Amino acid sequence: MAMVCLSDFEAYAKKYLPKIAWDYFAAGADDCTTRDENILAYKRIRFRPRMLRDVSVTDIRTKILGTEISFPVGIAPTGFHQLAWPDGEKSTARAARAMNTCYIASTYSTCTLEEISSAAPGGLRWFQLYIHRNRAASQQLVQRAEALGFQGLVLTADLPYTGKRRDDVRNGFCLPPHMKVKNLEWAFEVCKISLLDPSITWNDIYWLQSLTHLPIIIKGILTREDAELAVRHGVQGIIVSNHGGRQLDEGPATIDALVEVVEAVRGRVEVYVDGGIRKGSDVLKALALGAKCVFIGRPALWGLAYKGEEGLQDVLRILQDEFRLSMALAGCASVSEIGQHLVQFSKL
Amino acid sequence: MAMVCLSDFEAYAKKYLPKIAWDYFAAGADDCTTRDENILAYKRIRFRPRMLRDVSVTDIRTKILGTEISFPVGIAPTGFHQLAWPDGEKSTARAARAMNTCYIASTYSTCTLEEISSAAPGGLRWFQLYIHRNRAASQQLVQRAEALGFQGLVLTADLPYTGKRRDDVRNGFCLPPHMKVKNLEWAFEVCKISLLDPSITWNDIYWLQSLTHLPIIIKGILTREDAELAVRHGVQGIIVSNHGGRQLDEGPATIDALVEVVEAVRGRVEVYVDGGIRKGSDVLKALALGAKCVFIGRPALWGLAYKGEEGLQDVLRILQDEFRLSMALAGCASVSEIGQHLVQFSKL
Amino acid sequence: MAMVCLSDFEAYAKKYLPKIAWDYFAAGADDCTTRDENILAYKRIRFRPRMLRDVSVTDIRTKILGTEISFPVGIAPTGFHQLAWPDGEKSTARAARAMNTCYIASTYSTCTLEEISSAAPGGLRWFQLYIHRNRAASQQLVQRAEALGFQGLVLTADLPYTGKRRDDVRNGFCLPPHMKVKNLEWAFEVCKISLLDPSITWNDIYWLQSLTHLPIIIKGILTREDAELAVRHGVQGIIVSNHGGRQLDEGPATIDALVEVVEAVRGRVEVYVDGGIRKGSDVLKALALGAKCVFIGRPALWGLAYKGEEGLQDVLRILQDEFRLSMALAGCASVSEIGQHLVQFSKL
Amino acid sequence: MAMVCLSDFEAYAKKYLPKIAWDYFAAGADDCTTRDENILAYKRIRFRPRMLRDVSVTDIRTKILGTEISFPVGIAPTGFHQLAWPDGEKSTARAARAMNTCYIASTYSTCTLEEISSAAPGGLRWFQLYIHRNRAASQQLVQRAEALGFQGLVLTADLPYTGKRRDDVRNGFCLPPHMKVKNLEWAFEVCKISLLDPSITWNDIYWLQSLTHLPIIIKGILTREDAELAVRHGVQGIIVSNHGGRQLDEGPATIDALVEVVEAVRGRVEVYVDGGIRKGSDVLKALALGAKCVFIGRPALWGLAYKGEEGLQDVLRILQDEFRLSMALAGCASVSEIGQHLVQFSKL
Repeated sequence: MAMVCLSDFEAYAKKYLPKIAWDYFAAGADDCTTRDENILAYKRIRFRPRMLRDVSVTDIRTKILGTEISFPVGIAPTGFHQLAWPDGEKSTARAARAMNTCYIASTYSTCTLEEISSAAPGGLRWFQLYIHRNRAASQQLVQRAEALGFQGLVLTADLPYTGKRRDDVRNGFCLPPHMKVKNLEWAFEVCKISLLDPSITWNDIYWLQSLTHLPIIIKGILTREDAELAVRHGVQGIIVSNHGGRQLDEGPATIDALVEVVEAVRGRVEVYVDGGIRKGSDVLKALALGAKCVFIGRPALWGLAYKGEEGLQDVLRILQDEFRLSMALAGCASVSEIGQHLVQFSKL
Repeated sequence: MAMVCLSDFEAYAKKYLPKIAWDYFAAGADDCTTRDENILAYKRIRFRPRMLRDVSVTDIRTKILGTEISFPVGIAPTGFHQLAWPDGEKSTARAARAMNTCYIASTYSTCTLEEISSAAPGGLRWFQLYIHRNRAASQQLVQRAEALGFQGLVLTADLPYTGKRRDDVRNGFCLPPHMKVKNLEWAFEVCKISLLDPSITWNDIYWLQSLTHLPIIIKGILTREDAELAVRHGVQGIIVSNHGGRQLDEGPATIDALVEVVEAVRGRVEVYVDGGIRKGSDVLKALALGAKCVFIGRPALWGLAYKGEEGLQDVLRILQDEFRLSMALAGCASVSEIGQHLVQFSKL
Repeated sequence: MAMVCLSDFEAYAKKYLPKIAWDYFAAGADDCTTRDENILAYKRIRFRPRMLRDVSVTDIRTKILGTEISFPVGIAPTGFHQLAWPDGEKSTARAARAMNTCYIASTYSTCTLEEISSAAPGGLRWFQLYIHRNRAASQQLVQRAEALGFQGLVLTADLPYTGKRRDDVRNGFCLPPHMKVKNLEWAFEVCKISLLDPSITWNDIYWLQSLTHLPIIIKGILTREDAELAVRHGVQGIIVSNHGGRQLDEGPATIDALVEVVEAVRGRVEVYVDGGIRKGSDVLKALALGAKCVFIGRPALWGLAYKGEEGLQDVLRILQDEFRLSMALAGCASVSEIGQHLVQFSKL
Repeated sequence: MAMVCLSDFEAYAKKYLPKIAWDYFAAGADDCTTRDENILAYKRIRFRPRMLRDVSVTDIRTKILGTEISFPVGIAPTGFHQLAWPDGEKSTARAARAMNTCYIASTYSTCTLEEISSAAPGGLRWFQLYIHRNRAASQQLVQRAEALGFQGLVLTADLPYTGKRRDDVRNGFCLPPHMKVKNLEWAFEVCKISLLDPSITWNDIYWLQSLTHLPIIIKGILTREDAELAVRHGVQGIIVSNHGGRQLDEGPATIDALVEVVEAVRGRVEVYVDGGIRKGSDVLKALALGAKCVFIGRPALWGLAYKGEEGLQDVLRILQDEFRLSMALAGCASVSEIGQHLVQFSKL
C-alpha cells in the first residue's frame, strides 16, 4: 500500500500496533470530543487563495527561538515511543535531525536523555518537563537536559492530574515490564503517576528560571488570560495545546484557541500550536492564524510504528511537500508571506 | 465488563431490564427531541480551562438550602424504582445517604415515605409532590413527608397532563400487579393518572405554604417569566427541568434554559437543573452557568438496575470523581471558584 | 400494529400502497430538499412553555373565514384520492365532516364536486382551482362549486408548470384507466396537464372575483412581496405553501416563510400554512407564528390508505389529541392564548 | 434505466468507465472537501419564488462577450476527453454546437485544436491556456487558436503546480499510451507536467494581450482582491473557479466566492462560475447571484461517457429543461428578470 497521506500511516498503525498501545496513543479524555474537534476545527477554516503570484521558488524555512528549521513542523512531546518502535525516542531524534526540525523529548521517554542526545548529536531538541512532587528530581532533569545541549525547556501546564481516558482504564494500561520511563526510573512507577505535583502555579516559572538558562516554553495554554500571565512571567514561547484532547474534554480545539492567544500575546513571545494537524494545509492555516510553528503528536507515532526513523521521516516529508504545495497554491512564495488574509472561518 | 462511565450503566440497564421497564425509563415525549437535546446541548458548551492554579487540594462540597452535601449532584425524582431493583426506593435512599447527597423521593414511589425514611434514617431527602384533584390527599402527603423529616417540598409544575410517550402507548405500560404506588394506593390506579389536577396555578403555591413549613422548590421551570413568578410567589428554589424530555417535546434543553432562568433570578433563590447530566464535566458546566446543584434521573435508575444501592453508589462515585477531576483540570480548587468565565457556547 | 402517531400511518401507506401511487404522493421536486425541509424546519423551533396556568378546561376550536371548526387543522387539496382508497374524495369529505373541519377539494379529484357534496352534505368545504387555458371550463367549475355550497375558492398560484418529480418521470406516472379526473374529463387527459395556463397574473384575481361571491384564498405564497400583492388584490386568505415541495425545489420551508408572510400581512387577511405538519405540536408552532389554521396533505392520504374515511378520522383525531395536549403543556387553555411568545428559533 | 437527472449520468459513468479514468475525473485535492463543498454550498441557498407572473413564454437565451448562446450553460475546460469517449473533444465540440452553447477547449485535449475546429465548424469555442515554461510553445498555441476561430482565450490561474489528488497518486495515473496531449506532444509528456510555469504573474496578462486580439478570460479567481486585479489588468471576463476542488483543498465553494467577486467587479467585466452545477436550479442560483453564465465540468464528461456527443447533448438538454422550468417556477419569464431578490442564504 502506498503511503500517500497521513491517514495511511494512521491506518497502518491501527492495524499493526498492539491494541493496548494503539488505544493509549489514540486515547482522548471522556467522550473524545476535544480530540476529534482538534481535527474538525481545521475543516471549518477556509482559504482565500491568491493567484498569479510568482511561486516558482518557494522557501518554507522558518526560525523558532532564533534557530532555523527546514519547515514549520516539529515533533510534539509524547510518551513511550518504544510502544511504537523498538528503538523508541532514539529513532525519533534521528528522524527529526535528518529532516532538520525540532524534537521535543518527553519526560516520559523510554530512552534516557543521554541516549536521545547521543543518537542524533547536533539535532535541535527541547525537553518537556512534568514537575514532580520531588522537586530535586525535576531540578536534576532540567539540568541534565541543559547540559546535554537541549535548547529549550517546555513546561506542560495542563496535567495536574491525568485525564480520564476510558480505554486506558478498561485496558488497565501499563507499560510492558521490559520498558521503563528511564529518566525517572529511580523515582516512580509509570502506573502510579500521582507523583506529579498538582500544586504548581505561575510562581514555579520563576523557580524554573532560577535553575536554567534555557528559554522556557509553556505548553497547554488555551485562553487569553493565561497567555497574558505567561508573557508576564517571562516565558519565551507558548504552545497552544489541549494535550491532544487527553486532559479536559470539551475544551476548545487548539486552532480556535490559537486565535485568542495570538491576539493576547501581540507578538511579545512566539506562539506554537499542536493538535489536529493532519495535512500540510493545516500547517498553513495555523501559520496564517499566527503560529510560528506547529508540532505533531500522534502522526509522529504512526510514522514510528510504520518504519521507525524512516517512517517518521516519511511522515515529515509528506507534510513538508503538502505544506509547500498548499503555500504555493495559496499564492505565497515564502513563510513570511503567510498572513491572516489567507483564511476565513466558515460560518458552518 | 468494567463500569467506567455512566454509559456503561446505561448499556447494562438496556440489556438486562425488561423491555417494558427500559422503555418506560428511556421514554421521551413524541419524537424524543428534547430528551436527546438535553444531552446534545451540553456538548455545545466549551470550557475555557485555566492553568497553573494550585489544585493539590480540591473541595467539591456544596450546600443546598443550607445543608451540606458531599458534591453538587443529587437524585432527581423518578417513579417506580422497583421496576429497576426489588428494594426500589429503599435502595435509592440508602445510596444517597451513603454518598451524603440529597434524594428527592417521588410521589410515584413504589415504597411508602415511611419505608424510605426508615431505610436510611438521617439522610437528606426532599419530597416531590404531584397535586391531585383530591386536595386532601395531597395535603396529607405533604404533612406525612414533613413529619418524617423530609427537608424540602418539590412541586412538579410541568405535568398537568402526562406527555405522549409513544413506546409506553405501544407497550400499554402499566405497573406489574405486585407493585403499587404505595403512597397513594387508596387514591388511584397508576394507569389512570388523570387524577392529577390540571387546574393548579401559581396561587396553589400559597396553599402549599399554608400546609407546611418546608421550603418549597418548584420543578419544571424553563423561562425567565416563570422564574420571576416563582421568586415572587416565595419559593426557595427552582429546578430547571423539562421532565427528562417526557412532557412537551421540543422545548429547550435544560442547560440552555438554565442560563435564562439564572439571569432572571439574580441570586434571589437557589437554582438547580436536571436532564442530560452524563459526565462530571456536565456538572461543572451546569455550575459554571449558575446552578447550585444538579440532579440525575435516568443514570440513577441505571445504577439501581445494575446493583441496587451499590450500583447507584457506583454511579454517584464515578460522577464525583469525574467532577473533581474536571474541576481541577479547569483550574478550580473548590466549588466556589467555579464561574461563568469557565465556559463559552460553541457557535456550532 | 397500534397507530400511535402519524408516522405509523406513513409506514402503513408505504407498505400497502402500489409503488406508483406511493411514489406519486411522496414525490418532491428534484432532490426533494424542500419536501424534507418542510419537516426539518419545524424541528428547529423551540417552545417556551409556561407553567401553572389553569389548563383543566381546554378549548381548541377556531374559526376560519368566520366558520367554526373543531380544531385548527384542515385537509389540504391533493389530487387523485382514489389512488389511496376506492371511495376517494367521498371518504375524505365524510371524514372531514365527521371531525367538523374544513376540506379543500382539489380540481384534480377523482370524484365530481357533486359526488363530494352529496357524500357529506353540510360539511365545510372549499374548492381548489387550477386555471386552465380554457377559461370557460374554469369559470364553469367555479360556478358549480359555488352552487354546490363550497364556501371558499382556493387559487393555486405555484403551478404554472408541473415541477420535476423524478420518480414520477421514471415510473411514467399516469392515472390507472379506471380513474378519471372527473370534474374535467371532457377537457383534458391527466397525463397531459399542459392545459394549465402559465400566463395567469394577479389581474386574474379580479376575473375570479367577477365570477363568484366566494371568498378567494390564494395558495402558494412564500414571500412578503407576494403577500402584500395578495392583500392588495383583495383576497380573503393566504395559504403559505410550497406545494409539499413538489414544485420549485430549494425554496423556503413553509413554516419559515410563514413568519415573513404574517409580518407583511399585519392581520389584514387570514394566513394559513401547509407542508410538514406531522405532530400536534407542529400545529401549535404554526399558530404561535401567526397561522390561523394549518392544512395537512400527505398525512390525510396516509389515513385514507389505511382505512378510508375511518383512517383519515384516526389521523385527525391523533392530531387533535396531540394538539390539545401540547397546547396545555405549553400553558394555553385556548387557541386565543397561543402567541409568538411560545416559540423561539433554535440557533442550530 | 431512464436518464432523468445528472446524477443518473454520474452513476452510469462511475459504473462503466475504467476505474483509473473515473478516479481521475472525480478526483479532488487532499480530502476532497472543496470538491464536495461546491455542491453542498448550492443547497444552502434558498429561492424566494414569486407567483402569478406571466411565464407562458420563457426566454432562456443569453449572451457571453456579445455572442448569443441558447441558455447560460457552457462546457468548462477539462482534459483528456478520450478517456471518456473514443472521439474525445471532437464529440464535445459537436454537442456544444448542436446545443448552441460555448465550449472551452482545454490545453490538455486529446484532439488537436484543428481536429476540434473541423469537427464542428462555426461552433462557439474558447481556448483554455496553461502557460508553459517554454513561452514560445504557449504563444504558438494561442495564435493557432485565434487563427482557427476560437473566440476567447481562457487563462487558468490556479495551477502553478498540480494539486495533490490522492487517488491519482495511488493509481499512478497516466494517459494510456494510445492517447496523446496532441496540442503539445512535441513539448512534454503528460505524466511530467512540471513544464507548467509557476512563475507567471499578473504582468503575463499583458504579454498575452500582446499576442492576440482575443478577449482574455481569467479562470480560477476566488477573492475580491484578485477580481479587482483582473479588472485592472484588462481582462474581459472572470471565471470564478476552484478547478473543481482539484487544486487547493478547503478554499471557498465557488458559488460562495461568486458573491464576493461579483460585488468587487461591479459590472465592469462579465463574471462566470463553474463547480458544483448539478441541476437547472443551480444555474438559476448562479445567475441570481450575478453570474452571466455557468460552465459544467464533470457532468459534461459523464455525458460523453454515456453516449459521446449524444450523451453530452442529453446532459445539456436536461439542464436546459430544468433551468427553464425553475426560472418559470421562480416567476421569471426571461434571463433578464433574474436577480438577487430571488435568493437568500440559508442560515444552516
